Amino acid sequence: MTTRAAVQDGPRSKRREILEVAVDKFGRDGFEATKWASIADEVGIGQTALYHYFESKVHCLLTIMTLELERSLAQFVEATAGFDDPEGKLRAAIASAYDVTPREALAARILVSHTEFLGWARASVREEEERQTARRLVREIEDAWTALIQRGMNDLAFVPRDARQTATALLALVISVWRSYRESQRRRLPGITTFMSDACVRLVGP
Amino acid sequence: MTTRAAVQDGPRSKRREILEVAVDKFGRDGFEATKWASIADEVGIGQTALYHYFESKVHCLLTIMTLELERSLAQFVEATAGFDDPEGKLRAAIASAYDVTPREALAARILVSHTEFLGWARASVREEEERQTARRLVREIEDAWTALIQRGMNDLAFVPRDARQTATALLALVISVWRSYRESQRRRLPGITTFMSDACVRLVGP
Repeated sequence: MTTRAAVQDGPRSKRREILEVAVDKFGRDGFEATKWASIADEVGIGQTALYHYFESKVHCLLTIMTLELERSLAQFVEATAGFDDPEGKLRAAIASAYDVTPREALAARILVSHTEFLGWARASVREEEERQTARRLVREIEDAWTALIQRGMNDLAFVPRDARQTATALLALVISVWRSYRESQRRRLPGITTFMSDACVRLVGP
Repeated sequence: MTTRAAVQDGPRSKRREILEVAVDKFGRDGFEATKWASIADEVGIGQTALYHYFESKVHCLLTIMTLELERSLAQFVEATAGFDDPEGKLRAAIASAYDVTPREALAARILVSHTEFLGWARASVREEEERQTARRLVREIEDAWTALIQRGMNDLAFVPRDARQTATALLALVISVWRSYRESQRRRLPGITTFMSDACVRLVGP
């Protein structure tokens, strides 16, 4: 599929490279601790060029969050499409959440650790646009999980309860892993996938 | 019990008042959006006096997080002490997590939304001390939940699995409510308590 990222990045654009460096630095050193100027240095561009792409460190952070939400939603849709039975769909959704590259795992950590930035309006127009896009994607992801759970409840494959509340709880459980994620824990992801799939199936059960 | 807060606050100390104003402002307007100077204005003290108590907005944030962790651990211990059966203990732990004053709910939201600040060392000595205290309390809370779950597994009241992984998942589920919490949702807390208690009991079940 053609993502927003692909549309915005021309062949000579430094945007993708800036985003990759920023994900690595925010993910490894922390967003707070990363100096915005250090991103330009690492990419090998000047401050003015950096500003052309992102007007601030927060603008760059919000863009990373938007792209990660967009990626995970697309992966959810693709991973669950092939399944008809609700439990198979649910397990596929959870497996897809942990089927990530090392950099995507860092982006996931950055996303769940900075949702606070999505909660309040930004004064800057570009930051606020990015924030609104991120919020819309959060709702789309919650809607997609709710639809999956609602269908399972309609089929009585899952016990009928409040589908949105259940979906929100499952999603919170699945993404909680990223909160304390470090790259050294990457080898634990297969075990986490099994544990979380089983836990989520119990959660929608009797 | 005598908390650290009680020890540090003398009769003429403005510390508690600063913390209360900060919880209200960080919780309602967001930590990012709150100007540090506005806290001094609202308490009716000067910048120098404010600095006497907290050397920065982050130092104040970390202190709010520490106090909220301390409070919730004490409340967990007190709430679960009267129960012998593991399911009763688990339900009591979850009920205690949502048995909060309006300001404690805001502090809980601030805590879960800024755990990123606990992840990386602070350059300032006072901030770093507070961060270490907060991290120690996070471990103590995880240990307390793990002990509760481990005992339930030993008694075969809960299905034996990895007790720490299970406890961490339950805790993530319980606190996830605060992430999107707004004061207007306070009336939903009793319903959330029931939903979460049942969900957590299913999660430790067969």
